[in-house]
Amino acid sequence: MSEKKKLALIVHNGTLDKIYCAFILGSTATTMGWEAHLYFTFWGLQALVKGAMEKAGLPSDYKHMEKQMREKLKQMKYPTPYELLKRMKSSGLLKIYACTPTMEMFGIKREELIPEVDEMAGATTFLTVAADADVTLLV
Amino acid sequence: MSEKKKLALIVHNGTLDKIYCAFILGSTATTMGWEAHLYFTFWGLQALVKGAMEKAGLPSDYKHMEKQMREKLKQMKYPTPYELLKRMKSSGLLKIYACTPTMEMFGIKREELIPEVDEMAGATTFLTVAADADVTLLV
Amino acid sequence: MSEKKKLALIVHNGTLDKIYCAFILGSTATTMGWEAHLYFTFWGLQALVKGAMEKAGLPSDYKHMEKQMREKLKQMKYPTPYELLKRMKSSGLLKIYACTPTMEMFGIKREELIPEVDEMAGATTFLTVAADADVTLLV
Repeated sequence: MSEKKKLALIVHNGTLDKIYCAFILGSTATTMGWEAHLYFTFWGLQALVKGAMEKAGLPSDYKHMEKQMREKLKQMKYPTPYELLKRMKSSGLLKIYACTPTMEMFGIKREELIPEVDEMAGATTFLTVAADADVTLLV
Repeated sequence: MSEKKKLALIVHNGTLDKIYCAFILGSTATTMGWEAHLYFTFWGLQALVKGAMEKAGLPSDYKHMEKQMREKLKQMKYPTPYELLKRMKSSGLLKIYACTPTMEMFGIKREELIPEVDEMAGATTFLTVAADADVTLLV
Repeated sequence: MSEKKKLALIVHNGTLDKIYCAFILGSTATTMGWEAHLYFTFWGLQALVKGAMEKAGLPSDYKHMEKQMREKLKQMKYPTPYELLKRMKSSGLLKIYACTPTMEMFGIKREELIPEVDEMAGATTFLTVAADADVTLLV
């Protein structure tokens, strides 16, 4: 059994703000030496399709702020979502799960997803991991 | 005191994707022998009004994907949200709470809700249950 | 080390329904003698800008219900979000964190935020608090 602290996140949403929220939590956790378990479902899963994460934008209610936010992020030299994901991955503490029912529902195949996905899994896998986690959240 | 594992969910949203997310987690939990405590508030509560769950659709940002998703679900013979709810219920491990302040805010009466609701309750009840749960999430 | 129970919330969204959801949970927790730790990020943080909370409305998908909801709340003499916040604050059990990366991303300065904010902090602070909490949720 691991002595490490664990973060278990469901990433349901796929907009830029939610992806950043999930990845900032995840990369902070791995920097602190925690395991980060990210389970992607629905719109979150669709952001794992190759090329999709780069196109994620703000939800329509906040669309008018997107341009300003992107410019500010560039100016801050803030890492992109995919860069944050790769940073977490290189820690060896990140595990990415792709929700199998979502994949079937939207006709998405494994080879369409980014190579960083560790496992295709259902809710049983997530709940088993989450039951043993220190922090559980749905983003 | 129960030896069973416990999932405590707040169902705040009422769109088809969020209802499915909550009910897939809940029905997976009960299948694993866990207790599932689902506390419905705001738009989630409105989905408990008789006939409302059947009409739940995708949020406007994803509306264009609704037709394809419904067709795929039919083709997969995937259970409807209400079927998932009844499946959880028949396990004897599901408890459904309807948020009393929401009911007052939106003028919804007990007799308008589906009969599967176990209890009308406030946040005190939810927090007491959640404090003892293994996994807590807001959907 | 505190013997009190703890609620750790991330307030990511800033619409009226989500603010109420977070503050009803928070004020219920403090009434029960729990510590409530509220970490405001993205649209939630923007609701902490002076004058912003009073203007929070429903998301566009539910905009048509806003007038009815506001009238009902007035009729119920329900506290406004800011009144709930001050009630929590007066318990001495509430701690409000403002997400520093969000502040930089949106160019928000400390003096623009309501005075009840206790601390400007990053995700490390939240995860440290949440790891020790009894209930963790993202609203």
